[in-house]
Amino acid sequence: MAVPAFPYHSRVTSVRATAIELGLDAVVVTHPANVRYLSGFVGTAGALVIDRQRWTLIVDFRYLTFGRELQSAQDELTSMNVLLAERSEDETIVDLLRSTGAQRIGIEAASMSVARFNRLSTALAAGAPTPLNADAPCPVLVAGDRIVERSRIIKDTMEIETIRRAGLLLSRVARALMPDVVRAGRREVDVATDIDRAMREAGFDRPAFETIVASGPQSALPHARPTARVLHVGDPVLLDFGGVYDGYCVDLTRTVQLGPSTAEFRRMFAAVAAAHDAAIGAVRPGVLTADIDYAARQVLEARGLGDAFGHGTGHGLGLEVHEEPRISKRDPGRPPTAVECGMVFTIEPGAYVPGFGGVRLEDDVLVTADGCEVLTQVPNEIG
Amino acid sequence: MAVPAFPYHSRVTSVRATAIELGLDAVVVTHPANVRYLSGFVGTAGALVIDRQRWTLIVDFRYLTFGRELQSAQDELTSMNVLLAERSEDETIVDLLRSTGAQRIGIEAASMSVARFNRLSTALAAGAPTPLNADAPCPVLVAGDRIVERSRIIKDTMEIETIRRAGLLLSRVARALMPDVVRAGRREVDVATDIDRAMREAGFDRPAFETIVASGPQSALPHARPTARVLHVGDPVLLDFGGVYDGYCVDLTRTVQLGPSTAEFRRMFAAVAAAHDAAIGAVRPGVLTADIDYAARQVLEARGLGDAFGHGTGHGLGLEVHEEPRISKRDPGRPPTAVECGMVFTIEPGAYVPGFGGVRLEDDVLVTADGCEVLTQVPNEIG
Repeated sequence: MAVPAFPYHSRVTSVRATAIELGLDAVVVTHPANVRYLSGFVGTAGALVIDRQRWTLIVDFRYLTFGRELQSAQDELTSMNVLLAERSEDETIVDLLRSTGAQRIGIEAASMSVARFNRLSTALAAGAPTPLNADAPCPVLVAGDRIVERSRIIKDTMEIETIRRAGLLLSRVARALMPDVVRAGRREVDVATDIDRAMREAGFDRPAFETIVASGPQSALPHARPTARVLHVGDPVLLDFGGVYDGYCVDLTRTVQLGPSTAEFRRMFAAVAAAHDAAIGAVRPGVLTADIDYAARQVLEARGLGDAFGHGTGHGLGLEVHEEPRISKRDPGRPPTAVECGMVFTIEPGAYVPGFGGVRLEDDVLVTADGCEVLTQVPNEIG
Repeated sequence: MAVPAFPYHSRVTSVRATAIELGLDAVVVTHPANVRYLSGFVGTAGALVIDRQRWTLIVDFRYLTFGRELQSAQDELTSMNVLLAERSEDETIVDLLRSTGAQRIGIEAASMSVARFNRLSTALAAGAPTPLNADAPCPVLVAGDRIVERSRIIKDTMEIETIRRAGLLLSRVARALMPDVVRAGRREVDVATDIDRAMREAGFDRPAFETIVASGPQSALPHARPTARVLHVGDPVLLDFGGVYDGYCVDLTRTVQLGPSTAEFRRMFAAVAAAHDAAIGAVRPGVLTADIDYAARQVLEARGLGDAFGHGTGHGLGLEVHEEPRISKRDPGRPPTAVECGMVFTIEPGAYVPGFGGVRLEDDVLVTADGCEVLTQVPNEIG
């Protein structure tokens, strides 16, 4: 595995600042995308402990070589430590936390399981000095919210370069689909296989999610999985696919009607395209994400398709295919999110009419100082 | 999506018995594989609430049609209820739990996040009658351990049929790899792409995990990902792949050396093959999983490769590619697991020598009354 360049020191510094702001002495990062973001480490296990001084990656024996490569690729001043989990990862985390003397330890509440939280808490308490007293209190785990995600929501230069390149590659895949890959007589699953192969050939590591090819009435199900259904002339066909490129996700949807288009399809398509364009037009620093959603929703409502649009307008993209920010209706239970330069998200309004079918159009945008850059460049109508 | 036959009522009955044994009035099932196991529901969201009387699937609008199909496919006596999450899934769960009057509510601690646990707990407490008293105590969420997994570890007839069929299909894919797909001059990624395509063509829904094609020194990394490395004559090539068939996972590994085999490779291969055969020979009802692991480990130790075998001997297969039972060293912190009829797991010893390469051989077995049935039928040497 090639060892990438090292933007990690500045990312860790940013997360450490968040931790200090939250009154935390240390942070245990266990969500794989966050571990990767802060260390470059990619694996099915691995944790990162960030305290006020140090920054330690914990790996098991399977990943020790890779961990050491990551460590040695850094300059000495900013060096990450690498620690082998000799017994379990959790025991190693607890031993390390004890050695730091940290008292308030943030964990990632959105992804850490209740069982792991209880295991770590019990182990920390078991090692605390007795009797407990104010000079040597028992360390506590604090349910942290978005500790790393606050940094990840704004992409840095290296991330933007990667996502921009990925957007270009995905656009090429989309532009090559018609008329050969998507045509009457083929099965949904075969079209999906071809799209996946085209993504790999374009340079993607893998699909970012299970490719959706939904034809005819299936297209009315926003999350349909490809079936053995054969595409027919007259079918709306919804194609939603994305790839992972050097760890980063991009995502695109187009909908076509096979053969001569019908008035009903054209009407829905025009409405969704207008909603899509209105939402993209609304993107700029300072606007609320809910206002971008409203821009799309308003267009569909005005055309009688408000109820046909049951999902949000978009979602953030990065190391995960669904991350912050969410571009959706205002949620009274949460503070509103203002758009900032460097955010990357999808714009994907849709309309779904049970029995007839659906239309969705999705592109990826990067927020810039004066609006946004559309990272996927594909005509709305690829048919 | 085809609606499957309904083994769900007996599975729910078994989980309800576990809940009663644990003193729980209700169980909230949120781990997707467990929701699927108990209802047939497949989706990115969805929860199941099982109380002493009812059995309710909660879905959002995207999955309402599918949920209703699942419901109507059952006979009336055993019917599952389907509830639309009008607001959030969590709010619907809390409303439903309140309506049942359940006091001790089991959640799945191994997978539920700390944040969700806190959200549900707070919402339940907010709705509790005040002042609190013994007649109307506040409902509590109890961190449940393996509530559904205790049932899943023993496969039922329908599951066994599916996995048996999947094993046959995966064996066919493996037997067709040599000499064309895996040969000198090809890149690891291209071999992986071909394996994935062959699995799809054989009838698998998708790969069960990212296919491993690890050649030359890469083969010494047990979890290597395919790279652009070109296969050369003399390379050991480790191929580890699996497919999901009708929801169920199978998993297989073979290792070949390209061109004339070397004495060092033959020595490692023979040792791993002997360990693999010894472990399979040890499988029968009543034996401890740690003893199966020991059977493999002992063979490798006797040949000086004990330290080269750093992982466990196997893992359970089912709706997840890594599930119970684990076939590994005795863990002093956990009760031992005895093998039972109807368990399905992999046997996959390996030996890895940094700088030279690795060998792993993996098959899937079903425990039977007098030993086991090997579900993957492929010669150890496919070269």
